Amino acid sequence: MKEIIECVPNISEGRNKDVIEEVIENLKQTNVKLLDYSSDPDHNRTVITFAGDRDSVKKGAVQVAKDAVRMIDLRKHTGTHPRMGSVDVIPFIPIKNVTMYDCVNLSKEVAEIISSELNVPVFLYAESATRESRRLLPEIRKGEFEGFFEKIKDPLWEPDYGPKEVHSSAGVTAVGAREFLIAYNINLNTKDINVAKRIARSIRESSGGLRFIQAKEMMLEDKGCVQVSINLLNYKKAPIYRVFEIVKMEAQRYGISVLESELVGLMPMRAALESLAYYIQLPELSEDSIVETKIYE
Amino acid sequence: MKEIIECVPNISEGRNKDVIEEVIENLKQTNVKLLDYSSDPDHNRTVITFAGDRDSVKKGAVQVAKDAVRMIDLRKHTGTHPRMGSVDVIPFIPIKNVTMYDCVNLSKEVAEIISSELNVPVFLYAESATRESRRLLPEIRKGEFEGFFEKIKDPLWEPDYGPKEVHSSAGVTAVGAREFLIAYNINLNTKDINVAKRIARSIRESSGGLRFIQAKEMMLEDKGCVQVSINLLNYKKAPIYRVFEIVKMEAQRYGISVLESELVGLMPMRAALESLAYYIQLPELSEDSIVETKIYE
Repeated sequence: MKEIIECVPNISEGRNKDVIEEVIENLKQTNVKLLDYSSDPDHNRTVITFAGDRDSVKKGAVQVAKDAVRMIDLRKHTGTHPRMGSVDVIPFIPIKNVTMYDCVNLSKEVAEIISSELNVPVFLYAESATRESRRLLPEIRKGEFEGFFEKIKDPLWEPDYGPKEVHSSAGVTAVGAREFLIAYNINLNTKDINVAKRIARSIRESSGGLRFIQAKEMMLEDKGCVQVSINLLNYKKAPIYRVFEIVKMEAQRYGISVLESELVGLMPMRAALESLAYYIQLPELSEDSIVETKIYE
Repeated sequence: MKEIIECVPNISEGRNKDVIEEVIENLKQTNVKLLDYSSDPDHNRTVITFAGDRDSVKKGAVQVAKDAVRMIDLRKHTGTHPRMGSVDVIPFIPIKNVTMYDCVNLSKEVAEIISSELNVPVFLYAESATRESRRLLPEIRKGEFEGFFEKIKDPLWEPDYGPKEVHSSAGVTAVGAREFLIAYNINLNTKDINVAKRIARSIRESSGGLRFIQAKEMMLEDKGCVQVSINLLNYKKAPIYRVFEIVKMEAQRYGISVLESELVGLMPMRAALESLAYYIQLPELSEDSIVETKIYE
C-alpha cells in the first residue's frame, strides 16, 4: 500500500520570480509530486504544496529549506505576512496509508537535518510540539524575525533543534505534523485596515470567535484594499461557507462588501462540495456524485 | 488510448425494488463500470449511469433495455415523470478519446438491436436526430405512452427503427448521443402545483426562459410538496447557481421558499466548482486546486 504524505513549506519570497523558480525547479528534480505553488507579492511569500512517500517528501522538504536559506535574506524582507524564517514553516500532513504519528517522526527527522546542515534553529509545532505553548504557529512566530534575536534568549523559547542563536539571514523555522489546513483569504472593498482587524478578531478562535479558525488583517497595497487572511484548521467543523458568510455579515455593519475571496494552495474536494451543498440546499453532496475523467480510469 | 463513453438509460420503474435490483444486477454482469443509479418513487423512474468503451457500453445498454422491456408494463405505470417506454430513453455521452460522431454511430447500432430484438419502435434524438423536430426529447415524448398509439400513425412520427406499431407493454424508446446533462430538482415549500408550473415556465428555454434549460412541475405526494424538475443541458452556459437562484427568486413572489434541492445521478466536478466559486466570490476555482486522494496516485 502506497503511503502519501503532503508537505506545504512556506518560504518568505513572493516577489522575485528568479528565486521562486529556482526553488521550484530544484524541487522538481527530487522524487516528489509537485501539486501547487502560489506566490503573493503583498504577503511576499510563496506556499508550495507537494506529496510523496516518507522518503521522497523528506528529501523534497530539505531541498526547499536549503534553497530558501541560501537565497532569501530576511534582513531585506518586507511584506504583510508575519514571518520568522527564510523557510518559515514546514508542515507534514498524513493523506493515505500513513499515520499522524509517522508524520510527527518525519518532522523530527527533517528538523534534525535542517538544523544541523543549515545551522538554523528549529521549533517543532502543531502535533509535533514538545510543549503546549508551541502548538500554535502564531505563538511561536510572535515577534517575527526581528524580535527573535531577543526572544530566543528566553529559556521558554529555546529551540527544539539546532543552535541557540538566530541564523543571521535565515532566522528560525517551524516544522511539524498537522491535519489538512485550508488557507483562504477574503478581500474587502475598503482601505481601512481597522475594519479587517475587527472582523479578523470577531471570527478567530484566539479572540473568542469560531473554533479552528485563525485570522489576521492584511493591507494589500497592490490591490488597494484590505484582506482578512484566514486558516481553516478543521474544514469539517468550521466550513468555508460559514466563515465566508460571517465575514460578509460582519463587514456589512461597516457598510463594507466583499470584493473577492481567494484560495491559497489546495482544498479537499469534500470541503468544496459541502459548501456548495449549503448554498444550493442539497441535503448531501457526496464525492461519488462527482464526475471527472479520472474516475473512469 | 482508452475510450470512455457514458450511458444513462432511464427506466420507468422507481418503486419496485425487485425489478430495479434485477436490472442493476444483470448490468453488473456486463463489462461496464456502474457509476450510479437513483430511483424516485414519485417519478416512478430510475436513472442508471454507467461507462465503458464502445463495445461494453453497447452490451450494457442492450442488457438494460431487455430487462426493462421484459419486466416493466407501462399499462400499469403511474408516476409524475412523463414517459413513453419501459426503457424511456438511452443517451450516450462522449467522455474521453471518443467523438460525438462515434456516439451517434453507437446510438444507431443500439437502436437497431433494440428495435429488432425487442420489437420496440425507436426514435433517434439529440445529436442523433434525423430531423430537427426530434432533437428535443420532450417533443418526441409529447402524448406519452398512452398517446403514442395514435401519434405513431402520423407520418411525421414514423419511428427511425423498428415496427410502426407501439409495443403493447413497453411503448417506444428514444436513443441518441448528447452532451453531459445535469438532472437537478428543486423542491418548494408548498403543495400548490401552479406555483411550480409558473416557475418551470419562467426558467425553461421552450417558454422563453434560460437557454439550455428544460423544466417541468411535479407533485411529490410522498414528500407533500411540489418540485421544479430541471435538466441543465449545458452547465457552462446555464450554471447550477443561476438556475437555483432564479427559482428561489421567482418562488419569493408567491411567498414560497426552497425546501431543498436534489441531484439525480452525477455532476461534473467543474460544474460544482463553478457554482461554489460564485457563492464565495472566488474569481476562479480550478480542478487543480482540489485535493482528493486520487490525484496523488
